[in-house]
Amino acid sequence: MDLAEAQAVLEAQPFSRLIDARISAVTDEHVVLEVPVDDKLRQQYGLIHGGVLAYLADNSLTYAAALALGTSVLTNGFTIDYVAAARDGACLRATASLMHGGRRKATSRCEIEIVAADGTAKLCAVAIGSALRTEA
Amino acid sequence: MDLAEAQAVLEAQPFSRLIDARISAVTDEHVVLEVPVDDKLRQQYGLIHGGVLAYLADNSLTYAAALALGTSVLTNGFTIDYVAAARDGACLRATASLMHGGRRKATSRCEIEIVAADGTAKLCAVAIGSALRTEA
Amino acid sequence: MDLAEAQAVLEAQPFSRLIDARISAVTDEHVVLEVPVDDKLRQQYGLIHGGVLAYLADNSLTYAAALALGTSVLTNGFTIDYVAAARDGACLRATASLMHGGRRKATSRCEIEIVAADGTAKLCAVAIGSALRTEA
Amino acid sequence: MDLAEAQAVLEAQPFSRLIDARISAVTDEHVVLEVPVDDKLRQQYGLIHGGVLAYLADNSLTYAAALALGTSVLTNGFTIDYVAAARDGACLRATASLMHGGRRKATSRCEIEIVAADGTAKLCAVAIGSALRTEA
Repeated sequence: MDLAEAQAVLEAQPFSRLIDARISAVTDEHVVLEVPVDDKLRQQYGLIHGGVLAYLADNSLTYAAALALGTSVLTNGFTIDYVAAARDGACLRATASLMHGGRRKATSRCEIEIVAADGTAKLCAVAIGSALRTEA
Repeated sequence: MDLAEAQAVLEAQPFSRLIDARISAVTDEHVVLEVPVDDKLRQQYGLIHGGVLAYLADNSLTYAAALALGTSVLTNGFTIDYVAAARDGACLRATASLMHGGRRKATSRCEIEIVAADGTAKLCAVAIGSALRTEA
Repeated sequence: MDLAEAQAVLEAQPFSRLIDARISAVTDEHVVLEVPVDDKLRQQYGLIHGGVLAYLADNSLTYAAALALGTSVLTNGFTIDYVAAARDGACLRATASLMHGGRRKATSRCEIEIVAADGTAKLCAVAIGSALRTEA
Repeated sequence: MDLAEAQAVLEAQPFSRLIDARISAVTDEHVVLEVPVDDKLRQQYGLIHGGVLAYLADNSLTYAAALALGTSVLTNGFTIDYVAAARDGACLRATASLMHGGRRKATSRCEIEIVAADGTAKLCAVAIGSALRTEA
């Protein structure tokens, strides 16, 4: 899976378009998924909604698993731990790393940061998860 | 927290309005959060995006924790396990149950189903998570 | 899998014998796994070590998954949330319930309690997890 | 917390002594916890029991959180994902890393490997978890 293929998959996801997600990097072991900060993504206190961070975890972890398994995968599940609120910045950035790729399961982790216009990043959440190869 | 209060909190969340979420029930131990099935919520294969199920877990688990802690809570984190794809139906329904309420942490679980117009429900994901009381 | 079969599997696990685990009930949807309270299971403050509760989660969740998949399963992973310390009592009891059984994955949850000699139980941890059918 | 202090805490845990756990390294951001491979730690197929890996996750993650919070902490919970079976080797090694330290919660991750006598290591499980500072 290269950057163009990853972007094409994302473009084919209406929910990812709804929140303006974009893939900014794909390497052999990492995928970077971003969502621009926008008021439509907030909760009642003005923070970015946890559900947006959870979307970033779900999608970036599955992309990282696809680095090992190919794109015919189903998300198995994931765990997210929130460490700091996300409020002000230019974008949310999930950097997902492949941890292990087996025959039918791949496991990955991600860090989710809020990034200011000047590039300053603050860690907001960490996650691990896995995906299963789709059965023939 | 009663139904009207829970609905007012949800109405104050722009991200929840973006995906048309609604709270349909609040009891002493349960909260039911729903999202109508809509094509904007799908991924590249036409299934409901995992990120939507993850939003439902995040938000319903935190509501259930608020039954014990009150509404000044921060989501601590959660784990979601996907068990079946969600495609056709009238709405997604997360039923969250309070498992334990302590002085500063409350733990809850939820089942997420896709529900047909005739009320038939299919389990799509299960989750557990916790929230922490906001510090004074 | 019936009670006798479940007990025979447990008896064949040296680590389960090391901590004196026993299976007290198996139904179509539930498995109850117990460990007698013993000082060898404690941590530095005299509480039962979290690792003992984690063992109970790992093993009881996998047994519950085996109710759907049969005994040729591998534990996929699990999440445990500690809600109260376990110190005084007769035994620790994990009650695991099958949540969903698919073709290759089954998902279960458990509640872990510390139980006094008079049967009084206090919830100490909750967990969810899944197991995968061993590939042919 | 330095190596000597970490070792003294471990020595005060009867359950850690039962399975011969030892701490081999402590830095500002990492803790390494090891358990020698022994037949008493196996399950019915001769593999190291998942509960032993879960113990390693629970304890190493909490040690890494203590790097930020000090030693008065309670394990909040953790998630473990099994990626390969552990059978033959000299020891199991959990390398835990502090991911984020806040005022009352610290989050960490670990990799658990089985290590041969010649130092060859194979990844068996990954985990994330958090601990909470004990309340005054």
